[in-house]
Amino acid sequence: MSDKTDQMEQVLEQVLGLLEAREYEVLRKTLQGVHASDLADLVEHLEDEERLALFQHLPSDLAADALAEMEEVERPGELLLQLEPERTAEIVHEMADDDAADVIGDLEPEQQARVLAAVPDEEAAEIEELLTFPEESAGGLMTREVLSVSTQLTAGEAIAEIRRQAHEDFDFYTIFVVDPDGTFRGVVALRDLVIADPAVSIADLTEEPPAVVTVDTDQEEVGKTLSRYNLASLGVVDALGRLVGRITFDDVIDVVEAEATEDIFRFAAVSDEEEVRGTTGDAIRSRLPWLILSVVTAVVASSVVFVYQSTIEAMALLAVAMPVIAGVGGNAGTQALAVTIRRIALSEETVGERLGVIWKELVVGLVNGLVIGVLAAVLGLLFTDAGIMFGVVVLLAMWGSLVIASFAGAFIPIFLERIGVDPAVASSPFVTTLTDLWGFFLLLGLATAVLM
Amino acid sequence: MSDKTDQMEQVLEQVLGLLEAREYEVLRKTLQGVHASDLADLVEHLEDEERLALFQHLPSDLAADALAEMEEVERPGELLLQLEPERTAEIVHEMADDDAADVIGDLEPEQQARVLAAVPDEEAAEIEELLTFPEESAGGLMTREVLSVSTQLTAGEAIAEIRRQAHEDFDFYTIFVVDPDGTFRGVVALRDLVIADPAVSIADLTEEPPAVVTVDTDQEEVGKTLSRYNLASLGVVDALGRLVGRITFDDVIDVVEAEATEDIFRFAAVSDEEEVRGTTGDAIRSRLPWLILSVVTAVVASSVVFVYQSTIEAMALLAVAMPVIAGVGGNAGTQALAVTIRRIALSEETVGERLGVIWKELVVGLVNGLVIGVLAAVLGLLFTDAGIMFGVVVLLAMWGSLVIASFAGAFIPIFLERIGVDPAVASSPFVTTLTDLWGFFLLLGLATAVLM
Repeated sequence: MSDKTDQMEQVLEQVLGLLEAREYEVLRKTLQGVHASDLADLVEHLEDEERLALFQHLPSDLAADALAEMEEVERPGELLLQLEPERTAEIVHEMADDDAADVIGDLEPEQQARVLAAVPDEEAAEIEELLTFPEESAGGLMTREVLSVSTQLTAGEAIAEIRRQAHEDFDFYTIFVVDPDGTFRGVVALRDLVIADPAVSIADLTEEPPAVVTVDTDQEEVGKTLSRYNLASLGVVDALGRLVGRITFDDVIDVVEAEATEDIFRFAAVSDEEEVRGTTGDAIRSRLPWLILSVVTAVVASSVVFVYQSTIEAMALLAVAMPVIAGVGGNAGTQALAVTIRRIALSEETVGERLGVIWKELVVGLVNGLVIGVLAAVLGLLFTDAGIMFGVVVLLAMWGSLVIASFAGAFIPIFLERIGVDPAVASSPFVTTLTDLWGFFLLLGLATAVLM
Repeated sequence: MSDKTDQMEQVLEQVLGLLEAREYEVLRKTLQGVHASDLADLVEHLEDEERLALFQHLPSDLAADALAEMEEVERPGELLLQLEPERTAEIVHEMADDDAADVIGDLEPEQQARVLAAVPDEEAAEIEELLTFPEESAGGLMTREVLSVSTQLTAGEAIAEIRRQAHEDFDFYTIFVVDPDGTFRGVVALRDLVIADPAVSIADLTEEPPAVVTVDTDQEEVGKTLSRYNLASLGVVDALGRLVGRITFDDVIDVVEAEATEDIFRFAAVSDEEEVRGTTGDAIRSRLPWLILSVVTAVVASSVVFVYQSTIEAMALLAVAMPVIAGVGGNAGTQALAVTIRRIALSEETVGERLGVIWKELVVGLVNGLVIGVLAAVLGLLFTDAGIMFGVVVLLAMWGSLVIASFAGAFIPIFLERIGVDPAVASSPFVTTLTDLWGFFLLLGLATAVLM
């Protein structure tokens, strides 16, 4: 990859030189054969004015593909807005409808209207229709550019029909089969069509799709379906069962990556509205509410300590043990939580199986809690002269803390999923607070009872 | 989805009944049209003996596909081992070579040899060759079943050649083009071939692939490449540039999911060897080393508290503030860490851009630290009668703790990546320890200086 990076840096130098010299013809030649994804990366290194000059002079198909590949945070829509209306129309015309809707959809409504005003009415209407679907639904992911053939054709006729419908930039892997009234009937894999006898009927080649999604299916569900059945392309139907679009594997890879980012962010109490490459201001705003929540939960946990202040005054060593018990307990809770959340995300299970998960984590907490409790107690006895009973208190507090942590790490997300709350979103603060609260209570309560 | 679940539960009931009644002919009919992925799920609900009976009587192509779709933790390889050698050979024959290698590769070496002994020599040799590649490399992902045509054919001849090479269960989306000596030259999209004039030369239709991977490329890199360039299929070459296999999008979706699980697990200090649905014993073993590490780091952090015991004895309220500062600081560090790790995973950036990330997080820490510090100080003053200087100490300790947390959350993973260590694997304990250490030092040090 570093070869590739070097190569791209050279191209960037060249592009900057050519833009400055206004050598647009040479520029176009230089960028011929550069993949749109690489070009999109390159564009991110340009100043606003340079971007604009580049997009004014790029071949419009390459400009369209590069815009589609640019990251949301680079605001490709604003580029469209800054170009001459004729140029905007040219580029939008070359874009797949779903890419155009994504790029334009990130703009403010008033800006969207300005871009769409530059585009011919028919195209604008198609894009506007896609914009009506929520961004994270099948409707928001799909393209309406579907290659479909009627059940009534032969394989040979179908290939001729495909030649007629397909144009250059139209990727397809699956041929969708519809009734004369547009009802989705099934699919023919392109490879089956290619290797079939031309006289065989399409109806005989049609396979019932293992799954269909409707326009309002959530993107996470779309991703699971396509991935489960290893489909390159998935048909999208409306409420009446008519084929209205398709979603391809590359959209789904993006969804799987976005959902993984979302899971990790939620796990770390970062709002999933924060962009990986967003601004400092966005980061401050997205994280502050979660930090405020964590102040509140931490205050709740430390209220136990408040109650036992006199014990701590008598034996400050307990304050030394507190961070160890809270830290390790929190860690054990996080472990159980991560495994359980991922399990919920990746597999559908019966109630019995989910209860088994809670039981499993409880056993893990019992075993690891005992080992870690003994370790902590031994360390406490080695490094202090507090006596054997202090060791016993540390052992029991650590053990109890790890048991609760493991239990809560499994129980809370499973319970939240059961009542219809996304288990990733809210589990982490509950688990930590519960673990801290219980750990401090065991440590200080036992110490008060045994050592005072 | 619940319709689907209900339906599968009915099928499960039927299958159990038919297995008990030994109605194998009816069983085969019942399962006709059930997708292999659904069947694989169903198999997970069967006892060992029922599984064995089912796989003895399933059509061998369906048995092969279902085995390929079963999860690793269900040990599909052991099923192959328990079947009669002839039956094993039949099923393996129907499997794609990469699926067979995956299933057999999970067995012990001695078990692998027993399964391979049942398979004809030529097939066994092919599977053995795939088994020589590391599981997480391109070689470990690829299938050797590549459809390739020579640069010297016409489009029409190529289609005839494809009809000759392709058999029923051989998914392909891209035609690979090679020189007469096997050197990989490029690709022709199946759709381009279908819509091309039959007389045009393959050399003219061949596109240079935007990226090629070699057998030893890491799977994470493979995933990034396929996803970056939206490829349905990616050619794999050996050290001499000869085409030896291909990797398709469905493998990559699995890789993206597995890598996301790995990231979350590492983030939560769970060994990435732990399976989401692994046994209790595996979970205990995989998590214990990390818990022991967290005891050590927590002891390091609490050593600061040890030093200031006399201050705590004089003012136990400080022990109440400790968990709040450590908890919120840890949370802020986790936020910065999650965003930075995801940023490293998803985008390649220059050194300057990475330094910008550290700067951004520092600013986020300064701003949010001030807000949270003021909040904590106000809460402290409201709920206790400790006086204004206590509030100032809490404010400064919280602020300083959040600044260090944000800085460390960005700096540590970026530094680890720079020196070639996976930033996800080891960041979390460092960030937490540093934050706790610094937070306790500020709180107790300032309190000793100002309040004692």
